[in-house]
Amino acid sequence: MKRLEDYVISIPNFPKEGIVFRDVTSILEDPDGLKLSIHELMKLLSDTEYDVIAGLEARGFIFGMPIAYNKSKPFIPVRKKGKLPRETVSKEYALEYGTAEIEIHKDSIFPGQRVVIVDDLLATGGTAKAAAELIESLGGVVVKMVFVMELAGLKGREVLEGYDVESCITYEGK
Amino acid sequence: MKRLEDYVISIPNFPKEGIVFRDVTSILEDPDGLKLSIHELMKLLSDTEYDVIAGLEARGFIFGMPIAYNKSKPFIPVRKKGKLPRETVSKEYALEYGTAEIEIHKDSIFPGQRVVIVDDLLATGGTAKAAAELIESLGGVVVKMVFVMELAGLKGREVLEGYDVESCITYEGK
Repeated sequence: MKRLEDYVISIPNFPKEGIVFRDVTSILEDPDGLKLSIHELMKLLSDTEYDVIAGLEARGFIFGMPIAYNKSKPFIPVRKKGKLPRETVSKEYALEYGTAEIEIHKDSIFPGQRVVIVDDLLATGGTAKAAAELIESLGGVVVKMVFVMELAGLKGREVLEGYDVESCITYEGK
Repeated sequence: MKRLEDYVISIPNFPKEGIVFRDVTSILEDPDGLKLSIHELMKLLSDTEYDVIAGLEARGFIFGMPIAYNKSKPFIPVRKKGKLPRETVSKEYALEYGTAEIEIHKDSIFPGQRVVIVDDLLATGGTAKAAAELIESLGGVVVKMVFVMELAGLKGREVLEGYDVESCITYEGK
């Protein structure tokens, strides 16, 4: 039986020399890989009580929505600045070069709600950290963060210290 | 029982004066709305034979993935230029001001495959048309396009003439 990592295509020297890019979209080209990715993420959540799934734009939408659908939870899209039409809260965070800003609808999280953050990749952890802070600013409690893949060499877990973080696949490199 | 349109929040004068913005994300804040949206989309596909779901970035990922999951189909993300790591085909198309470019992985569609395009909103139809042409350039056959909402006043159907287009909710305005 194929494991989830068998569906991931690795691209050497993308986006730049010396980086091995792990392509999560190749998992989705095979219906068995697609199902397996969702089931492995749900397995990481099997002992977690939660009320809401928050998916990070854009690939967190891909992996978050089937979980929300299967588990009958609301789905909250964490979006790049300027895409949500109603009142939002937003958070700026540092990138390697410059900054980015994400936001969520103000009415999308209620105080005390237990939220799971879903994304495809844990790299530096900056986006997930900013998303957690946004959710907490509305009174939500981030009970878990789950990722399809993790690049351990980028030490995202240090940035996310204090949170319960799990990944389906861990790569040692960057 | 609530209908799908009952979950849509309408925001007057967004993004500009005179436009009523229909917010599809409000459907997702209620698990019943979320499920209903996926079930209504699948109902539109109940008589369609197809091999692949293609979702348009970013909200097409939200609605396309649960269908692919439920129906055991591959999911192909149609992305904005520069986000896909492997060899792609891309297509430029006109926006109200300027142009945009979308792309898909070259190996994601095989000749003869029957493809369903999924997105949240049919507005002018420009993105869906460009996505269809991309898919066709790889030999795929676009057998259906389904949308959660349609703004009939923008006449996207005229742009998409010749395709089988269906929407869950139709608004008469723009």
